[in-house]
Amino acid sequence: MGTVAKALSLLTHFNQTRLEMGLSDITRASGMNKATVFRLMGELQACGFVEQVGNDRAYRLGPEVLRLAALREKAVPILSVSRDVLKDLCDLTGETSHLSILRGRELTSLIHEYSPRHATRVMMEDAEVLSLHATASGLAVLAYSDAEFVDEFLATPLVGHTKRTETNPEKLRQVLSNARANGVAESANAFELDVHSLAAPIFDAEQNPAGAIAVAAPASRMTPQKRDRIAEAVKEAALELTQKIGGFCPADYPQERAA
Amino acid sequence: MGTVAKALSLLTHFNQTRLEMGLSDITRASGMNKATVFRLMGELQACGFVEQVGNDRAYRLGPEVLRLAALREKAVPILSVSRDVLKDLCDLTGETSHLSILRGRELTSLIHEYSPRHATRVMMEDAEVLSLHATASGLAVLAYSDAEFVDEFLATPLVGHTKRTETNPEKLRQVLSNARANGVAESANAFELDVHSLAAPIFDAEQNPAGAIAVAAPASRMTPQKRDRIAEAVKEAALELTQKIGGFCPADYPQERAA
Repeated sequence: MGTVAKALSLLTHFNQTRLEMGLSDITRASGMNKATVFRLMGELQACGFVEQVGNDRAYRLGPEVLRLAALREKAVPILSVSRDVLKDLCDLTGETSHLSILRGRELTSLIHEYSPRHATRVMMEDAEVLSLHATASGLAVLAYSDAEFVDEFLATPLVGHTKRTETNPEKLRQVLSNARANGVAESANAFELDVHSLAAPIFDAEQNPAGAIAVAAPASRMTPQKRDRIAEAVKEAALELTQKIGGFCPADYPQERAA
Repeated sequence: MGTVAKALSLLTHFNQTRLEMGLSDITRASGMNKATVFRLMGELQACGFVEQVGNDRAYRLGPEVLRLAALREKAVPILSVSRDVLKDLCDLTGETSHLSILRGRELTSLIHEYSPRHATRVMMEDAEVLSLHATASGLAVLAYSDAEFVDEFLATPLVGHTKRTETNPEKLRQVLSNARANGVAESANAFELDVHSLAAPIFDAEQNPAGAIAVAAPASRMTPQKRDRIAEAVKEAALELTQKIGGFCPADYPQERAA
């Protein structure tokens, strides 16, 4: 790993539950030595990527990431475009909808919408890493990833998030094959109990998966009819978003829409 | 400059008018040699900070910046909080309102709101670098910056953006002193002709300027009464935002509100 990649890898330790981290925390999480972490964090700080706050001078992400995100959004307006798509999907299904995007080999939730229709709903956190084999979004992305990555991923030990998580590689291959046939992936109780989700991949200009759109409902509310309606809606929403961000579906993606 | 800072400095060449850049463009803009730029961009790409697109493999910012921005926003929710403040300011004044934030020594526009009240309005671009001496936002921030930086900045050659831009350091010191006395800075026709702006600084938890809130109107529409109303409104909005982001005004900031 080069020095730059090493420094930027330090930023991956910040997440929803660790918005601020002290030097010791980052040192521990990274496994690097403290002097190196201190020097790299100093360089990141000089560039506005992190800043130090409070009496304990803990680090948190800096304002420069907002400027870069505004420029990324101008180049690929996925947030502004997906907000409307997610809202429509929410209205149509009465359940929580969300968008996740792939960066490298990690899938991260980015934006969500809640429906006011029911007294209970699936709650979402933005910027959370989603499990590839245990969430509908992860399976949707994996179903369209290159074979090399899928083989590599399935060869690693797979985490059982709940007692219902499928961790058998051969069974997961069957799940991916089904997802690919339908253009929609499904996951019930596998990442969190009582959550049933359906997701469809979105594609970039090179026909590679860029992320996924999903609808998540309390499992207790999911009927077969509702499941079919959501599967259809989530697929249409994903096709719409792919088109709006200038992407293209692979030739074998099942594109027929409901009448 | 360390390797990390060098690599991250390459990202600063992306802006509103250069959302995609080829290797040669970045090499030219950075003044580094092509092999170095190629290597550093490769490291940034591996981390998701940039990606290559199109037949010419041009670089643009990558999805990782969106994840980091979502986490920064969770730690310091300036976008979600300022959206309402900017909308109210817009409704109250009937003019364009915007927020800019300071990262290091550079002020960047981040988010704006338009008022539908008039047939003409001042247009804004997000993620644009704002001149410190020629915009109301820049002057508001400069008025509360440490003396060392102000001296250093005023000693550099100051760009005359229009024929009305003040570039005389001594006269600018007087302008900053007035801004500090009022808590509000003003700029007319100095960055772009026919734009008259008023801005107030927002402060972070250490009482340092974190950015500015501004209202910009066509100069032809600005009357003395309107100017005073906007000055009052922009100051109140900045105080509100400072408070909402957990910041504190310096002791000498004129905080009295209008009755």
